[in-house]
Amino acid sequence: MKTYNFPSAGSWSDILKRPTQSKANLEKVVTEVFAEIQAKGDEALFAFTSKFDGCQLNTLQVSESEIADAINTLDPQLKAAIEKAANNIRTFHNNQMQTEAAVQIADGIQCWRKTTAIEKVGLYIPGGTAPLFSTVLMLAIPASIAGSKEITLCSPPNKEGKIHPAILFAAALCGVRKIFKLGGIQAIGAMTYGSESVPKAYKIFGPGNQYVTAAKQYASMEGVAIDMPAGPSEVLVFADASGDAAFVAADLLSQAEHGADSQVVLVSTEARMITEVQKEIDIQLQALPRKETAAKALANSILILVKSKEEAMDLINEYAPEHLILQSQDEAYFVQNIRNAGSVFIGNYTPESAGDYASGTNHTLPTNGYARAYSGVSVDSFVKKITFQKITEKGLKELGPTIEIMAEAEELMAHKNAVSIRLRSL
Amino acid sequence: MKTYNFPSAGSWSDILKRPTQSKANLEKVVTEVFAEIQAKGDEALFAFTSKFDGCQLNTLQVSESEIADAINTLDPQLKAAIEKAANNIRTFHNNQMQTEAAVQIADGIQCWRKTTAIEKVGLYIPGGTAPLFSTVLMLAIPASIAGSKEITLCSPPNKEGKIHPAILFAAALCGVRKIFKLGGIQAIGAMTYGSESVPKAYKIFGPGNQYVTAAKQYASMEGVAIDMPAGPSEVLVFADASGDAAFVAADLLSQAEHGADSQVVLVSTEARMITEVQKEIDIQLQALPRKETAAKALANSILILVKSKEEAMDLINEYAPEHLILQSQDEAYFVQNIRNAGSVFIGNYTPESAGDYASGTNHTLPTNGYARAYSGVSVDSFVKKITFQKITEKGLKELGPTIEIMAEAEELMAHKNAVSIRLRSL
Repeated sequence: MKTYNFPSAGSWSDILKRPTQSKANLEKVVTEVFAEIQAKGDEALFAFTSKFDGCQLNTLQVSESEIADAINTLDPQLKAAIEKAANNIRTFHNNQMQTEAAVQIADGIQCWRKTTAIEKVGLYIPGGTAPLFSTVLMLAIPASIAGSKEITLCSPPNKEGKIHPAILFAAALCGVRKIFKLGGIQAIGAMTYGSESVPKAYKIFGPGNQYVTAAKQYASMEGVAIDMPAGPSEVLVFADASGDAAFVAADLLSQAEHGADSQVVLVSTEARMITEVQKEIDIQLQALPRKETAAKALANSILILVKSKEEAMDLINEYAPEHLILQSQDEAYFVQNIRNAGSVFIGNYTPESAGDYASGTNHTLPTNGYARAYSGVSVDSFVKKITFQKITEKGLKELGPTIEIMAEAEELMAHKNAVSIRLRSL
Repeated sequence: MKTYNFPSAGSWSDILKRPTQSKANLEKVVTEVFAEIQAKGDEALFAFTSKFDGCQLNTLQVSESEIADAINTLDPQLKAAIEKAANNIRTFHNNQMQTEAAVQIADGIQCWRKTTAIEKVGLYIPGGTAPLFSTVLMLAIPASIAGSKEITLCSPPNKEGKIHPAILFAAALCGVRKIFKLGGIQAIGAMTYGSESVPKAYKIFGPGNQYVTAAKQYASMEGVAIDMPAGPSEVLVFADASGDAAFVAADLLSQAEHGADSQVVLVSTEARMITEVQKEIDIQLQALPRKETAAKALANSILILVKSKEEAMDLINEYAPEHLILQSQDEAYFVQNIRNAGSVFIGNYTPESAGDYASGTNHTLPTNGYARAYSGVSVDSFVKKITFQKITEKGLKELGPTIEIMAEAEELMAHKNAVSIRLRSL
């Protein structure tokens, strides 16, 4: 852990520099896999799944009986937890559907926007030893609230050709029935072009390793929208004297266990807090199954002592953390002044893992400083807004000359004529 | 013009295929220019402006006196038109600022979102013979409504080192004072990295030629957000017996004059309409200064006769036009059922040029089928939404066990511990 005491504002950008993403040179393999999928469809998907996942499938789509089995066999306690989390996520995201009134610009000129679901969306859920069923909820619930008609979910099969029952249960709970045993590049390729089995998606969502990231980037060049750019997960905790060092340490560790490249930052106005958190980390780390991973992330973690809450706020806004945890007696000040963050956790009893799983907010958030320009996933991510306008004869008489003058000044005479020809008819 | 009578639905995707974008091989030049700008800042910007725009500048930023001159010398009629359009655009976009209520998920668990402006935005306005001052309004007005603190505008200087007064007037009208004489790749590079003179932007907006498009793509790899992917402009007009062939022809021509690669489509349930529109196009084309450009676009234009409004609607939703003009006695049917379009113009007296300039809607819209997944530019494009949550001791007691079960099932024990350590303290 690197500790900085009262660093000057000019040095923050160096101190807080995220490691440069090693752009894995995966373009060649992605291009080849995508070309095969586009040319051969399912045949290519079966072949790549055999090659990359080591399993021979007869059908790509998860059957109704497999889904039913998952629902029947999953631990009831886990089912209940997933259902409770899903209800909270649904409650929070339902609140995001808003309607906008039409605007009467002038007599005879009415303009409005209509929110419309993206019809076909593709959700990617990574595999591996731990099944990320929570991400199923975070993507499928806003998709279904938005009203997307065709929700496709891909997740890699294990060697036995199975997807973890918690993923199938979560998907079924959200009404997603088009689930495919596809991982990595071939999953993204399948949703980009569509195949005999897999529907084409207009927008692809979901986390993944460097192969998935490279494939999503390629998909975006092929005309498919993607949720947001990817980067390692990160947390910044601000704690003043009112914070609890053990809780802070636990929050930092929960970020550190994600991966060796996780970004972990503590900012404090109290020297004592920084010392105590370090001690607590050493203690708590020993009990963690992923302690080696967490230790690697901690080696690059940053502990910064600042002079004031104002300085802390400036530093936080400059860093733009994905997750921001506030353990402060002045929490209102931070809530008021935060400008760049993905999701903010307020108070000593609001751990990041609440939002990761079950409080209702979305855990798909902008990393790598993207919080300066991007929001996390929400219902907004699954809709687009179409503008409409209707102008009457009277409205055009009133507005027409303005349009004619502007079009002429931009030397677009056919634009002008589209108005003039109508005005002449009146 | 290519005419298709009652083509089968299976053939639509071929008929409506947009020409493949020739991906100009500009990556090398963009990479070089960006590297120079990153390394040398203003020095590189002066050098590239000399090289590419043929003018030697002493300062990059437009001075206050240049802005004052523009305001004083611009034709008063044009000023009044720009002011009127700006008022309408402001009225429409003001309506897009919405607040969202906080959600009480359970006793002791409150979650909410706060809409926050993207602090630093960069607007690019192309140069050339015609000054696109209308695009200044379309970008700067939503930026200022959103509350972006630092709005930077770049537009290429002419050989005399000047930017057209209509652009300066429109910018000043919107409160934009940081205006730089920079065009093409160097403008986008300057806003990507920042220089001594030019502020770095978190998100870059605006149209441009293939150099600008390639540069924006490169900027997005460098961590800067961009408004949307680019493609040639397009219109689809649906006209039934209630349409006016002369108006339809004028609308198609106003799209065709944009460029040889503009996409122009007419869909009709009336064979007579298609014949009459063709005749009208031939007549009106002769009067246009840009008739050669328009004729080239028209050579690739598509006129489709369909059996019914339902078939028309399906075809329109499949094509996902940037602009959709409806001259139909059943306009309510189309308004109700349109799912994929950028902006819709309803009725015989609502030409696309109304929305291009002055009715209030935005003219920066998704082309190339991107309307399936993207909205046009709006206030939404200049904000992000930060999620917040606050959980009390009571709230965590209630929700904590759910989080613990889920974290354990995902094998993230530090996530679980961040809850357990708090629950133990209670």
